[in-house]
Amino acid sequence: MIAAKGYAAQNAQTPLAPFQFERREVKPHDVQFDILYCGVCHSDLHQIRDEWGGSIFPMVPGHEIVGRVTKVGAEVTKFKVGDLAGVGCMVDSCRECENCREGLEQYCLVGNSQTYNGREQDGVTPTYGGYSNLIVVHEDFALHVSEKLDLAAVAPLLCAGITTYSPLRHWKVGKGHKVAVLGLGGLGHMAVKFAVAFGAEVTMLSTSPSKEEDAKRLGAHKFVLTSDPARVKEVKGYFDFIIDTVSAPHDYNLYLSLLRTNGIHICVGAPPTPAEIMGFSLIGGRKSIAGSGIGGIPETQEMLDFCAEHNIVSDIELIPIKDIQNAYDRMLKGDVRYRFVIDMNTL
Amino acid sequence: MIAAKGYAAQNAQTPLAPFQFERREVKPHDVQFDILYCGVCHSDLHQIRDEWGGSIFPMVPGHEIVGRVTKVGAEVTKFKVGDLAGVGCMVDSCRECENCREGLEQYCLVGNSQTYNGREQDGVTPTYGGYSNLIVVHEDFALHVSEKLDLAAVAPLLCAGITTYSPLRHWKVGKGHKVAVLGLGGLGHMAVKFAVAFGAEVTMLSTSPSKEEDAKRLGAHKFVLTSDPARVKEVKGYFDFIIDTVSAPHDYNLYLSLLRTNGIHICVGAPPTPAEIMGFSLIGGRKSIAGSGIGGIPETQEMLDFCAEHNIVSDIELIPIKDIQNAYDRMLKGDVRYRFVIDMNTL
Repeated sequence: MIAAKGYAAQNAQTPLAPFQFERREVKPHDVQFDILYCGVCHSDLHQIRDEWGGSIFPMVPGHEIVGRVTKVGAEVTKFKVGDLAGVGCMVDSCRECENCREGLEQYCLVGNSQTYNGREQDGVTPTYGGYSNLIVVHEDFALHVSEKLDLAAVAPLLCAGITTYSPLRHWKVGKGHKVAVLGLGGLGHMAVKFAVAFGAEVTMLSTSPSKEEDAKRLGAHKFVLTSDPARVKEVKGYFDFIIDTVSAPHDYNLYLSLLRTNGIHICVGAPPTPAEIMGFSLIGGRKSIAGSGIGGIPETQEMLDFCAEHNIVSDIELIPIKDIQNAYDRMLKGDVRYRFVIDMNTL
Repeated sequence: MIAAKGYAAQNAQTPLAPFQFERREVKPHDVQFDILYCGVCHSDLHQIRDEWGGSIFPMVPGHEIVGRVTKVGAEVTKFKVGDLAGVGCMVDSCRECENCREGLEQYCLVGNSQTYNGREQDGVTPTYGGYSNLIVVHEDFALHVSEKLDLAAVAPLLCAGITTYSPLRHWKVGKGHKVAVLGLGGLGHMAVKFAVAFGAEVTMLSTSPSKEEDAKRLGAHKFVLTSDPARVKEVKGYFDFIIDTVSAPHDYNLYLSLLRTNGIHICVGAPPTPAEIMGFSLIGGRKSIAGSGIGGIPETQEMLDFCAEHNIVSDIELIPIKDIQNAYDRMLKGDVRYRFVIDMNTL
């Protein structure tokens, strides 16, 4: 086994603290890399607090991981020592079900192995995430990262990036479409960047007037303050798609009314309480409400390559790991533009 | 004006009773026809009881109307005296919005004129439905009906038929698809017939064991008793589509769990209370919940032609109009297989 260190939650009540643990030895198809940066995702906080239930402790969070390869197994063909590498929300899956065979490992029918707060495919061994100094992962679940981009700002692409890229691609969003992005946070700011890059007309919907300047800077063509009924009325029946990144309860029927006929409201954020949807909100205009979860491994690589080609990264604030609790506190207040990333050299 | 008679509700509390009223004189593009049969839709009852709000009284219900043309306006080209004709849920629309221009009059952006409990496009004149002896309608909103089919059994195609035909066509349901139909009533039994005709594998989902025999007789390949957890478990992640015809509150998250990855739950019934949907029910498998409302005029004609070609009609129980209250009482108890149709000769 390989000695590793990181920050872990010992239970749902206490703050993260330094933690010594072990990674597996590099097997023939494994890649080992030193973690240089790890993004801080809102789901990290949900899980260390056990807000979704079933949390596995001790928990080393983090699934927006980038670093440099230090060792490769004898059979590895995709990576060599010195390459940059990334890991997102999954470190393995059954590889045999129809979804895995189609590169939709995020919807593995057996259940994939999440990067942390999960189990390896043996169903026993716990997984530990990226708030740590190194990781060992099967080459099939490691991604290539370009040397051209700011590496710290690439880290959030592994979750916030792919989570918004994937539905935009799946529903073929592009030129001629009017897209609304709901919520300007880690996911929302990436949704704006990608939808703009794909050629859509992008409108930021927000309850906060202070977000307008940033939305425009990120590339949004329009901004609608959703607390202003007159502005909301102007965009009734206007959008082809809404990308909904909000994970707090909100009024879905209001947003459905902003969709055109055949419009699709795509949820990538999951509030803890059910969405309450009136049948007529869907029937009156053949509308849909859909969900989308991260993205598969091939699509994640496609997204990273697209970002390298189009010079797209996340807007980040780099923090030392000792400040993680403060970062969580600020995240809860919405005081982050738009992703905290931990500089793992500070571990 | 033309003297007409029918059955009307004078308010939300009293039963239907005989009613004398007037239809407009036949204008150059109008068709007048004697109503021979009118189907009894559950929405008739919702509206005469003002359960959806905004009901207009006196109300002559009925939007599953078939009959024989007795007079045509000078400019009418689609119909001649003696033709069979039908009218569904709409008698007019703005005809100018993008949806009307695409033949999606059911989603008219200005608001279409419903066949009853609505207003003509002047926004003033109330519309009266098919529980009456005759109707005058613009030829563009009258449908051709085949002489080949049992005319009484054709009537429900104008609402129950098109409401289920349209989403199956829109989502291109056919060979290779596994389709579940939820609820075996007026809409559900038509959904089974159409989905089978389109080549899908069809499963009836029902809480009532007594529906199994009928479901099979209608063409369903499988039957799953949803009150039996073991049977439900067998179809987890099984269906490509669910056609949900239920207008009583039910557990959407349970049914979403029966969908495959990318599966779509299509609501054609609208419960009075909101659907409560957990975000993870959609995100875990990129699932959608969608709505669909009746169908446009061109598609309604296509459906009627398809039915004539494939010998598809509704399963009905013919009643005299004096028994309408008893029919409503039985409908509320689910005691109808599968549509009451009023024989308008009994008026």
